[in-house]
Amino acid sequence: MTGPDNFSFKVLCEDGPARLGEINCAHGLIETPAFMPVGTAGTVKAMTPEGVKRTGAQIILGNTYHLMLRPGAERIASLGGLHKFMNWPGPILTDSGGYQVFSLAQRRKLDEKGVFFQSHIDGASVELTPERSIEIQNLLDADISMVLDECTEWPVTESRARESLELSMKWAIRSKNAFRLRPGYGLFGIVQGSIFENLRQKSAEMLMDIGFDGYAVGGLAVGEGQAQMFDVLDFTVPHLPEGKPRYLMGVGRPQDIVGAVSRGIDMFDCVMPTRSGRTAQAFVRGGTLNLRNAIHSDDDRPLDLCCTCPTCNGYSRAYLHHLVKAGEMLAGMLLTSHNLHYYQEIMRGLRHSIKTGMLSEFCRNFFSEIEDGPVQALTA
Amino acid sequence: MTGPDNFSFKVLCEDGPARLGEINCAHGLIETPAFMPVGTAGTVKAMTPEGVKRTGAQIILGNTYHLMLRPGAERIASLGGLHKFMNWPGPILTDSGGYQVFSLAQRRKLDEKGVFFQSHIDGASVELTPERSIEIQNLLDADISMVLDECTEWPVTESRARESLELSMKWAIRSKNAFRLRPGYGLFGIVQGSIFENLRQKSAEMLMDIGFDGYAVGGLAVGEGQAQMFDVLDFTVPHLPEGKPRYLMGVGRPQDIVGAVSRGIDMFDCVMPTRSGRTAQAFVRGGTLNLRNAIHSDDDRPLDLCCTCPTCNGYSRAYLHHLVKAGEMLAGMLLTSHNLHYYQEIMRGLRHSIKTGMLSEFCRNFFSEIEDGPVQALTA
Repeated sequence: MTGPDNFSFKVLCEDGPARLGEINCAHGLIETPAFMPVGTAGTVKAMTPEGVKRTGAQIILGNTYHLMLRPGAERIASLGGLHKFMNWPGPILTDSGGYQVFSLAQRRKLDEKGVFFQSHIDGASVELTPERSIEIQNLLDADISMVLDECTEWPVTESRARESLELSMKWAIRSKNAFRLRPGYGLFGIVQGSIFENLRQKSAEMLMDIGFDGYAVGGLAVGEGQAQMFDVLDFTVPHLPEGKPRYLMGVGRPQDIVGAVSRGIDMFDCVMPTRSGRTAQAFVRGGTLNLRNAIHSDDDRPLDLCCTCPTCNGYSRAYLHHLVKAGEMLAGMLLTSHNLHYYQEIMRGLRHSIKTGMLSEFCRNFFSEIEDGPVQALTA
Repeated sequence: MTGPDNFSFKVLCEDGPARLGEINCAHGLIETPAFMPVGTAGTVKAMTPEGVKRTGAQIILGNTYHLMLRPGAERIASLGGLHKFMNWPGPILTDSGGYQVFSLAQRRKLDEKGVFFQSHIDGASVELTPERSIEIQNLLDADISMVLDECTEWPVTESRARESLELSMKWAIRSKNAFRLRPGYGLFGIVQGSIFENLRQKSAEMLMDIGFDGYAVGGLAVGEGQAQMFDVLDFTVPHLPEGKPRYLMGVGRPQDIVGAVSRGIDMFDCVMPTRSGRTAQAFVRGGTLNLRNAIHSDDDRPLDLCCTCPTCNGYSRAYLHHLVKAGEMLAGMLLTSHNLHYYQEIMRGLRHSIKTGMLSEFCRNFFSEIEDGPVQALTA
């Protein structure tokens, strides 16, 4: 399995632990560090695919749990796969479905074979095994598939974390065995082990023995706080292979992403920019603005004076406030677009600063804006 | 008041009673017959202004009632007017606010001075007189303002319709007197008189004596049915001046618009394409599709095989059905875009067929598709 059509990752340059890289996969190229907008049910909520692309996103995430329940993986396959179905021709990463089973499904029951649950949509009984998760992701035609793992609860004792990890490692082997090799398609393992250094190290080593196209760090952003999350990255990342992409799942706020990139992480996903956009929150340098606040009602400034996104180019805070108050869909559309653009702008800044050896200066500036307080958000 | 900067209307050619024309106003040119998407609260719901423009719309309608209550006409004026506020640089027509007072406001009280009501948003007491309506439309910077009139109820006796008409004509004079002449800005009168020919004629003559830049036919599409509406147009339009645009307010379905154009109407507005788009209805040749219907769940065809809109270019009925079932905002966005495009496509077809003297053939084809039943909608 070598050749130009294969799934590949190249590190182009480094700045401390941070890397500038490139993933090549079936549906295109992804510059890393990369942020993946979440397209849960076959749509990045409130956005057209063209709009997502315009923000600079090169890969999006699809949720296996949602898509398997509705409209169904076999249906999407018969309609030509997820890319065609949702009109997103670029790369797609799908999760395994496990996380949503644990957070959304009813009456779930887990054993070594897999997880059994009732759909939150219609109550149907569903079985999700490592093999079925991989089969679904294959039916969806995901460029990057994720192994099914157990989402270890938080907080957790070391012995329980170890037990959970052992199950996840068995499932990782079964996932790898079920994964159908195709040029341009990759499978990522997920390092578990909660906050325990020895478990994280063991998990990383076991996964590397199995061999994956990329390595995710899972089980973070579950309530442990940024300091502990960064600690875990500090002692986990050195155990991951240099030549494979590293993906921090479900993270996070801009300051989490900047901190994680400087610790060697290459890929991120989070619902924060999209969900915030639908609940009147805008990300701006230094913090966030709540557009529901009446303080914006006569403010003719854009969300962010330096932002080049279509929202900031055409609309005032006063208008966005009006749309929010009036319950207009355009509020969610314009704020989501801005937030995704803002996230991609950070990724562009991170990539540029790694390339030019200026990452520490980028981080200093970025965090000083946050410590100074959100300059534009002070009044909101 | 003459010169190139003035509000003007030119009839370019005629085909029977139908006219191909051009309105020149402060913010641009409008080819007629024209359909105006409704931008109630400063947004054409579920659409960006760029998206509206892409459908071919050259003018949109703003609702004075909604905008005066929230965010307020004075606020919009201080933010640079409605065009800038909502990022729509093209022409805007505003209604007088009267219709929504009658349909939405609480505890309304009407006398010769004006109408007094409580806001449906916060219960505030508000007065709307002919003078205040014109002042608000001026503050919004509407290219075309409408006189305040009384919305005659339906059904109605002739004597009550006459009484209502007399009040509306007094208000028309006051509206004209209050209207501030500015190059490129126009004021339209509204012909009332319900279904009574003598009243419609009298109303048209009184308005022409006052003198307006355009003449609307009001009080239709209130439940009288298409046949009676066409009757009213047949006996009303001949009393309207040749050289001024004619606007049939609040109409309607594609078949209503085609029939009215062939009776000499130049302008239309209706919430139908936008509201339908948010409730899973798509307009296609010959009828409508209900995308909520499970029949679409595996259908990989676009809404309309001949449609060139972005929705039909990128998305299947199966995908749109999925979005509707999943409650995704993108459903409303894509269906609204398609519906507006479909309406504008009809207007383009009408204009082209008038230009080429083929209007009767256009109408014959159009109505035969409807009579044959919606070819594509048969199964839905």
